[in-house]
Amino acid sequence: MTKLDKFSPLEKFEGIEEYWSPKIAAEFNGQQMRLAKLKGEFVWHSHEHEDEVFFVLDGELKIELRDRTINLKSGEVFVVPRGVEHRPVAESEVRVMLIEPAETVNTGATQSEWTQKNIGWV
Amino acid sequence: MTKLDKFSPLEKFEGIEEYWSPKIAAEFNGQQMRLAKLKGEFVWHSHEHEDEVFFVLDGELKIELRDRTINLKSGEVFVVPRGVEHRPVAESEVRVMLIEPAETVNTGATQSEWTQKNIGWV
Repeated sequence: MTKLDKFSPLEKFEGIEEYWSPKIAAEFNGQQMRLAKLKGEFVWHSHEHEDEVFFVLDGELKIELRDRTINLKSGEVFVVPRGVEHRPVAESEVRVMLIEPAETVNTGATQSEWTQKNIGWV
Repeated sequence: MTKLDKFSPLEKFEGIEEYWSPKIAAEFNGQQMRLAKLKGEFVWHSHEHEDEVFFVLDGELKIELRDRTINLKSGEVFVVPRGVEHRPVAESEVRVMLIEPAETVNTGATQSEWTQKNIGWV
């Protein structure tokens, strides 16, 4: 996890098995770049104080908001502003880069079976 | 520049003409995602308080450090830690995504003809 190595986010996915279980790829300025494999429907949640960047590296991801749905393809980015309820939905497996504060919990204020207690590096 | 739109970083490069002149594509948690076309040799500089993420979207970029050189290809990431002197060098045009605090100046503490006074959105 030395900060002084380059890396390929896509290649790091070889070390990620589980869905909905982000791993840290880099840390900078109190933020983390996290990598996650997603498939299926996540829980509705929001992050009160944290904006959350979704960057789809491979596949397609829907981000449902309460009033509309954002359809992201490979290479597309969406920033979910703090406080905005959202639910990621992936019909097929998708590989996503997230950027968010180091203290961000994956399910925000929603407690769920998906809630990640500790987040490791990949 | 509404935060509630998705975007493709690579497509945004259609709006970027100048080399070494980053434009803001997104803002979150006090950080900015900036897009820059680079070609040639930049100036040696460092950012005293800010880590700087380089994500090469298209092309190849060398990041010279005082003791070695990081060679980045498309899809590779390197985080220059705060305080570390570096010089980006691109033999051919390269398209790069930067992530850094909103207050980061492109040439850090080094004043240069490249120093960007105001940074616009793309």
